[in-house]
Amino acid sequence: MERCRLVFSGSGGQGVITAAIILAEAAVLYENRIAVQSQAYGPAARGGSTRSDVIISDSAINYPKVVQPNVLVCLTQEAYNNFYPIIRPGGLLITDSRYVKIQRKVDAQQKELPMHQAVMEKIGKPIVFNICMLGAVIRLTGLVTSESIMKVLKNRIPGSFLEINRNALDLGMTLAEDVKS
Amino acid sequence: MERCRLVFSGSGGQGVITAAIILAEAAVLYENRIAVQSQAYGPAARGGSTRSDVIISDSAINYPKVVQPNVLVCLTQEAYNNFYPIIRPGGLLITDSRYVKIQRKVDAQQKELPMHQAVMEKIGKPIVFNICMLGAVIRLTGLVTSESIMKVLKNRIPGSFLEINRNALDLGMTLAEDVKS
Repeated sequence: MERCRLVFSGSGGQGVITAAIILAEAAVLYENRIAVQSQAYGPAARGGSTRSDVIISDSAINYPKVVQPNVLVCLTQEAYNNFYPIIRPGGLLITDSRYVKIQRKVDAQQKELPMHQAVMEKIGKPIVFNICMLGAVIRLTGLVTSESIMKVLKNRIPGSFLEINRNALDLGMTLAEDVKS
Repeated sequence: MERCRLVFSGSGGQGVITAAIILAEAAVLYENRIAVQSQAYGPAARGGSTRSDVIISDSAINYPKVVQPNVLVCLTQEAYNNFYPIIRPGGLLITDSRYVKIQRKVDAQQKELPMHQAVMEKIGKPIVFNICMLGAVIRLTGLVTSESIMKVLKNRIPGSFLEINRNALDLGMTLAEDVKS
């Protein structure tokens, strides 16, 4: 895909901004792409949903906001309710099956993944929920390799946390594998 | 100031992206403003300088990239060399006096602050260099209060790290106080 526009949405503390930054860094530093990453904060940020945008491209990006994402991730019901209408026709909608009840059919592939449940059962640390989500995103899109994500993580986090992040990334990739059509 | 556009620049690992996110969150969550925060990654990101943009406003922000910042912070020589030409006339240029040698006169207030040196001498942890920088920025601009920054930090970091962050923020404010004209 020449240009991929992604929106990660959820609530504060779920790490959607961090996930977006990690993805953008992986694409640029280790896959030779160009990327822009942004977040807008407004009244919605006050106790509401968090949204973080990433554009990954092979050519210069003039407008850094995502209007219609090819890939929309919603980790809470409120985020889903706010953002499902913006998905690009033919895009990919990824939701967490514990937190989001899908209420509308959209013109997109819909993947409901038990990411939070799997992270709690297999790893027991909610802090890596966002990394599990990234694993699902990269497996379903092929945007960057898991090795590129791990290289970014190695620069960002203490060595003692690398293993649970690796496990969370693998878990997200496995969940995505299960639903890949 | 109705709308303030800021660019924080430096090298990877100096925490300029994190500082930008903290400032944007403080403005929105605790000062009732609207904010957009973004970073563009391209060839420059490969071993080069990092740049992170924040716009804080009282009204909707349509274009999230900063073209001419009112406030430009440069924490490395390379960042200074790349970005000094974009400062808005009459703006504020803040540099670290160890890392940056000012080579040009620009139409802006120039404040060279020994932030890195002070952090190493008084705190001994380079990881809070970015928080010291934020202290200087908020003292020189009055954009948000230190209490708002601390509230954001309380949500983001373990309690045991709060004190050194508080100290770094105070240190940056004191350094700024010393050069305030």
